[in-house]
Amino acid sequence: MMKALVFDGDLRMESDRARPRPGPGETLIRVRLAGICQTDIEIIRGYMDFRGVPGHEFVGEVKESKAAPEWVGKRVVGEINAGCGRCEYCRRGLERHCPERTTLGIAGRDGCLAEYLTLPAANLVAVPDELPDETAVFAEPLAAALEIMEQVHIPPGSRLLILGDGRLGLLCALALQSTLADITLAGRHPSKLRIAAGAGARAVPVDALEPGRFDFVVEATGTLAGFEEAVRRTRPRGTLVLKSTSAERRPLDLSPLVVDEIRVVGSRCGRFPAAIKALERGLDPRPLIKTVYPLDRALEAFDVAEKPESLKILLDMRLDRA
Amino acid sequence: MMKALVFDGDLRMESDRARPRPGPGETLIRVRLAGICQTDIEIIRGYMDFRGVPGHEFVGEVKESKAAPEWVGKRVVGEINAGCGRCEYCRRGLERHCPERTTLGIAGRDGCLAEYLTLPAANLVAVPDELPDETAVFAEPLAAALEIMEQVHIPPGSRLLILGDGRLGLLCALALQSTLADITLAGRHPSKLRIAAGAGARAVPVDALEPGRFDFVVEATGTLAGFEEAVRRTRPRGTLVLKSTSAERRPLDLSPLVVDEIRVVGSRCGRFPAAIKALERGLDPRPLIKTVYPLDRALEAFDVAEKPESLKILLDMRLDRA
Repeated sequence: MMKALVFDGDLRMESDRARPRPGPGETLIRVRLAGICQTDIEIIRGYMDFRGVPGHEFVGEVKESKAAPEWVGKRVVGEINAGCGRCEYCRRGLERHCPERTTLGIAGRDGCLAEYLTLPAANLVAVPDELPDETAVFAEPLAAALEIMEQVHIPPGSRLLILGDGRLGLLCALALQSTLADITLAGRHPSKLRIAAGAGARAVPVDALEPGRFDFVVEATGTLAGFEEAVRRTRPRGTLVLKSTSAERRPLDLSPLVVDEIRVVGSRCGRFPAAIKALERGLDPRPLIKTVYPLDRALEAFDVAEKPESLKILLDMRLDRA
Repeated sequence: MMKALVFDGDLRMESDRARPRPGPGETLIRVRLAGICQTDIEIIRGYMDFRGVPGHEFVGEVKESKAAPEWVGKRVVGEINAGCGRCEYCRRGLERHCPERTTLGIAGRDGCLAEYLTLPAANLVAVPDELPDETAVFAEPLAAALEIMEQVHIPPGSRLLILGDGRLGLLCALALQSTLADITLAGRHPSKLRIAAGAGARAVPVDALEPGRFDFVVEATGTLAGFEEAVRRTRPRGTLVLKSTSAERRPLDLSPLVVDEIRVVGSRCGRFPAAIKALERGLDPRPLIKTVYPLDRALEAFDVAEKPESLKILLDMRLDRA
């Protein structure tokens, strides 16, 4: 038995949920620390029709691993997409696009807002000893931010605008520093803009952003209005990276994409080793942490995470054990 | 004086329009043969708020060229975008993105559905003697189709779908043969599908297109429904080339672009020398010609060009002189 946050149309705590059992090639992981993501909030609003334990940002310790016993006892993070291992995407290291994939806490697989989870051993990435849990827990969203660099070549000195000062926008500001682009982040929250500024970006209130267009624009507002603004802010032949998934639907005029020959790149999950490498080299996401709750208070933590001014909310399963 | 088709809210023929006068660096060109494009049809429906002589597909003969007299007497086609010559786009050979550009028959400059037009000498491209007017007149739309190859690397053997069997879709099918991609064109008109098949593409009725997704999808339907179908037909991490400008606005869900990390590339005008080279090497667009009218019958020609089953309608100014 274990404690877990469960969504079955309503969100509630269970204290006697069955511990998940690892399948072939899978490991059992005891969660140490987990994060709440905007996607989790969308899920409890109905996105993906997911039922089960939500959550996909975690650092944990491997407790069982029959197929790969060398993992037992290791502190790990884990790629959240588990592919079939046989299709063309899996063969190219793109399990995150496998048509039969399950995704931790998002699709077909219970997530990490619980005491235990299971993942294939192939998904695990060891956390170096020098990285504290509070840093390593950002591996998943940081990998998603670094995915931009896997998909798009951003030359040094490029003029890059990030629209949105939420968790994703701020992580993009941190992650994209290594491109040596000239980064501006525009948002609505002075406290968040200060974090972007601390990371080396030019941070400006969105209403004070000067006219002009950018070589690259990262859309991280979560709204279609944000997409339209991103189009207006991308220069002819420039690149618009679309990061937020929104269930919103509204009339859109796509003709500016053709007239200005803009390239729009949808961007989702990324590779964990790159994120761990960035963290090892000193990228510090901890200014994004707002509050740490014990798992018992997960419902309260979700309430806080839903507020627009909130930054990263963590759930610390070590506190429950203490 | 000259004959010209004029749009000033209504479309009408004028027989006593003043001949255009070349500005500094410009040439006067007598039009030999011109084409009617979907953009012209959109313009007489109000697109771009254009007033004046429409038309931007032509082959003609240079009559006056003070700044560059070597052009006089030459048979030419001409890049339709005239840039300021000073901005960063013009300096990079991207006059077609100059923020101060005029565009022949589309924005700020009278077009080619008249006996004479003016263009900067820098825009001219000589037509080799062996290319008949009926082939050279396709230089502009063919350049727009080849623009895809300038923007996107399409490796040999790629699975590429063209959605739409209109003039643009068919020219893309012809133009993209040289990528050695495995091209399927899906459309609704048996006679047009035959042209695509004749060009070496797999041509299928859109309702008979088998399930499955493609590495590259070229959207040439002119509708947002076509865009949505193009998204569904693009594989994860694949590329969707958006070719049609449509004034249509309707609710769109962009989240599949993020989930499948699709790249959308807006694509408009292209470089003429590439088009002339393709024509010299044997690309033959003449199967797309439906009817040739004298300029006097331009209004009738527009009526025919608007019909969905119509292919390329040409206006032959040589007939008016005969």
